[in-house]
Amino acid sequence: MSKQQKTAITPTRAEDYPEWYQQVVRAADLAESSPVRGCMVIKPWGYALWENMQSVLDDMFKSTGHKNAYFPLFIPISYLEREAAHVEGFAKECAVVTHHRLEAGEGGKLVPSGELEEPLIVRPTSETIIGETFAKWIQSYRDLPLLINQWANVVRWEMRTRLFLRTTEFLWQEGHTAHATQAEAEEETLKMLDVYADFAENWMAVPVIKGEKTEGERFPGALNTYCIESMMQDRKALQAGTTHFLGQNFSKAANIDFLDEAGNRIFAWTTSWGVSTRLIGGLIMTHADDDGMVIPPKIAPSHLVILPVLRKDSDQAAILEYCRKIKEELEQKGYAGGNVRVEIDNRELRGGEKMWSWIKKGIPSWIEVGPRDMESDSVFFGRRDLGPKERKGIGRQEFIDTFIQVLDEIQDRLLKRAWAFRETHSVEIDFEEDFYAFFTPENDHRPEIHGGFALAHYSGDPDLEAKLQNDLKVTVRCIPQMDKPEPGTCIFTGKPSAQRVVFAKSY
Amino acid sequence: MSKQQKTAITPTRAEDYPEWYQQVVRAADLAESSPVRGCMVIKPWGYALWENMQSVLDDMFKSTGHKNAYFPLFIPISYLEREAAHVEGFAKECAVVTHHRLEAGEGGKLVPSGELEEPLIVRPTSETIIGETFAKWIQSYRDLPLLINQWANVVRWEMRTRLFLRTTEFLWQEGHTAHATQAEAEEETLKMLDVYADFAENWMAVPVIKGEKTEGERFPGALNTYCIESMMQDRKALQAGTTHFLGQNFSKAANIDFLDEAGNRIFAWTTSWGVSTRLIGGLIMTHADDDGMVIPPKIAPSHLVILPVLRKDSDQAAILEYCRKIKEELEQKGYAGGNVRVEIDNRELRGGEKMWSWIKKGIPSWIEVGPRDMESDSVFFGRRDLGPKERKGIGRQEFIDTFIQVLDEIQDRLLKRAWAFRETHSVEIDFEEDFYAFFTPENDHRPEIHGGFALAHYSGDPDLEAKLQNDLKVTVRCIPQMDKPEPGTCIFTGKPSAQRVVFAKSY
Repeated sequence: MSKQQKTAITPTRAEDYPEWYQQVVRAADLAESSPVRGCMVIKPWGYALWENMQSVLDDMFKSTGHKNAYFPLFIPISYLEREAAHVEGFAKECAVVTHHRLEAGEGGKLVPSGELEEPLIVRPTSETIIGETFAKWIQSYRDLPLLINQWANVVRWEMRTRLFLRTTEFLWQEGHTAHATQAEAEEETLKMLDVYADFAENWMAVPVIKGEKTEGERFPGALNTYCIESMMQDRKALQAGTTHFLGQNFSKAANIDFLDEAGNRIFAWTTSWGVSTRLIGGLIMTHADDDGMVIPPKIAPSHLVILPVLRKDSDQAAILEYCRKIKEELEQKGYAGGNVRVEIDNRELRGGEKMWSWIKKGIPSWIEVGPRDMESDSVFFGRRDLGPKERKGIGRQEFIDTFIQVLDEIQDRLLKRAWAFRETHSVEIDFEEDFYAFFTPENDHRPEIHGGFALAHYSGDPDLEAKLQNDLKVTVRCIPQMDKPEPGTCIFTGKPSAQRVVFAKSY
Repeated sequence: MSKQQKTAITPTRAEDYPEWYQQVVRAADLAESSPVRGCMVIKPWGYALWENMQSVLDDMFKSTGHKNAYFPLFIPISYLEREAAHVEGFAKECAVVTHHRLEAGEGGKLVPSGELEEPLIVRPTSETIIGETFAKWIQSYRDLPLLINQWANVVRWEMRTRLFLRTTEFLWQEGHTAHATQAEAEEETLKMLDVYADFAENWMAVPVIKGEKTEGERFPGALNTYCIESMMQDRKALQAGTTHFLGQNFSKAANIDFLDEAGNRIFAWTTSWGVSTRLIGGLIMTHADDDGMVIPPKIAPSHLVILPVLRKDSDQAAILEYCRKIKEELEQKGYAGGNVRVEIDNRELRGGEKMWSWIKKGIPSWIEVGPRDMESDSVFFGRRDLGPKERKGIGRQEFIDTFIQVLDEIQDRLLKRAWAFRETHSVEIDFEEDFYAFFTPENDHRPEIHGGFALAHYSGDPDLEAKLQNDLKVTVRCIPQMDKPEPGTCIFTGKPSAQRVVFAKSY
């Protein structure tokens, strides 16, 4: 590029990636910081996106046999204490409720009153409280498997927060299941990992690597944690969803046992799995560009915005009618399990400003309709994946007839683009020196591909993981699922390695 | 009835109404008390019911121009203090978060740590925190009206709780809107009241009276509160939804102002409105009977359950296939904005026990299918609104062809039955003595209709309301909307009255 182009977002990704992220969230009207420390306000455009994601995931959970239920927001401290690793993982970031009313204190200022006998924490996750209930629901093998999901808000007190990526309160779903055998529970854990990967790739257009976490990265209390990992445009990894095989840890802690067919009393095998509003952070960092948000059509709050160009001398009523008819025709078309969603933006704003507001919001496509477009029975069509300079006139009927195909094409292109980006920045590394260079920009002889996913043989030593984290801020993102894992030699220790694992810096 | 019939629920409504209610909730698998004081677990059948209600309401809100968003769970105490009436109304029942972590105290027991500078309360309602955000979003008349809804959990610390009716944590939606003029805000308040009434009557089959609250019953901080009131089977009133005209109280407290077209800075006029999981309590007490829950088809989690009757000598595979085909055919039919929902219950349970489990859950209809039904190409059909003794054989094709019509008929009958019940127990009362008798069973000369809705002229004196509450536990439920209000004379004071109002005992 010979001259610098003006972008809608300042700074650009290249100039200051973290600040670019904040500016995209703001410009796209997705969310904002709230006056309550660490909590966000999810704005209508961001919430509509979340609703679409919820709706698809919810269908996937239901079609794999899960039912939704709702459990209390509060958890008695004593429950948390029952599982040692679990309490260790969450005690340092709990909102604690200690009183149940306010009364006027000195100078009329309200102060907490009515101290609770046992403080409650606001759920950071619900294994303990749901386990307590499962213990009542499960008596016999006939009650199994028990497959429950909950959509809820959770709270983990975070000191450094970033919209969607890390907030004190966030929205999520948490699946909790109990099974008669270890094999069934492990199968469930992997099945839900597949559901998450399917959702990420086929709906969010976010390519992911499915794999297993190393011991140090497991969920507190789990025997095994699986994850989907995706690459952001700064080449860091984002963990987009996790599923946990909990073994009998939580069933022993909450006494979830059952009588099997032979009449033996056995502890159930449990799992849990979740994705959260963090996914939206991942979506932004996968697809957004220097002009703002880019939303894949399948989960977009609206697929098309119609921008009527109303000049004083034009027949405004006729243009609006022309727009309304296009909207009506498109909205009868089925797309992605629902119907096409169209908005008409009739705000009193200059045309360019109006168009750019939608580009920044990441709507997949838009049309401008002025007097001349109407006269020639056409529309002026823009696609978010192509950029505003590639807008073009197209006959109205052709536009309507091909619209679904265009949405499919946009969805497909976004996935392929993200896929290509990840492939470009995933490198097999066979020497420790190269590994250090890869994650140290100033030492890297290939700075243009510096710092993506390093696929390297590794012998699985926790001390080594600590050292890499300390030296480079790099961790094992996962031990990826592979059809044919090839053994090799650990690049750090020379010990045998069963397969390459994925190393990266991460969110 | 010459001999007493055995009922699935003990005690019956007549024997012990409050205990009957608890037993219905339990037997129908709707919800249960949780181990956390005052909080409930909403079980899958109850939550599916709530999801259906949410889905219909959400469509109604969206089609009236509202958008969903999400605001923080926590509210700083200082926000609450800004509106005097509001804090007065909620300070006594707030869960207060005072710490943000736990640490090991004496004997290793976990104790709260990391005290907050300013304690937070868990939202009992969100006027203050949403107002704070609205103040940022609203700058000009162009930003109005702002029509927002939130689906959320809220907490009001309750000492005496009852599942769905009064729990410390409950689920609800809260609409919050801001308008440029008083007239627009008042119109919104009444529009949403209509939406609630429409939902109650046409979806829940719960007839309601729309009206205005008296001063003492208003939402803390509102200038006017409107409500829908319905009559339960113990003839008490239940407030099923409220909408509030907040005037400029909250906009002044949170500084929600805007520049009008003339360039004047003006405080916005705001409203709020909500319905909650309490609606499910009202649904139960409107429709359930001594055999358990009765769910109106339009919001039922499933419309039909198929109970295969599999004997050892029967061709089990053929019967299951026959059932599956019926399910498939029915599920292609559209009903109430979605499709027919059918379950096949294949549990290892005795036939009678299985059928009764569904009767208690309130499923609108069921069919039993055994070898002889299959041979004669028929099904044995039962309807929850008619009772198990009225089951009858019906040809398979006829059953399928008429199924939607039957669902409509059930929905209609439930509404009419509830309507008739309310009409029977609504009495115009013109003398204070009759009024006292009506609400005092032992003094009532018509004990069979004792204690429903008393429609009486009333001059609107707050002291009098306090007296009636004290003497009889009776309150003004609402000043009903009427096409032609007829003036009269207050039966207590002899002063002029603009119209009759509705008095009742209530939940």
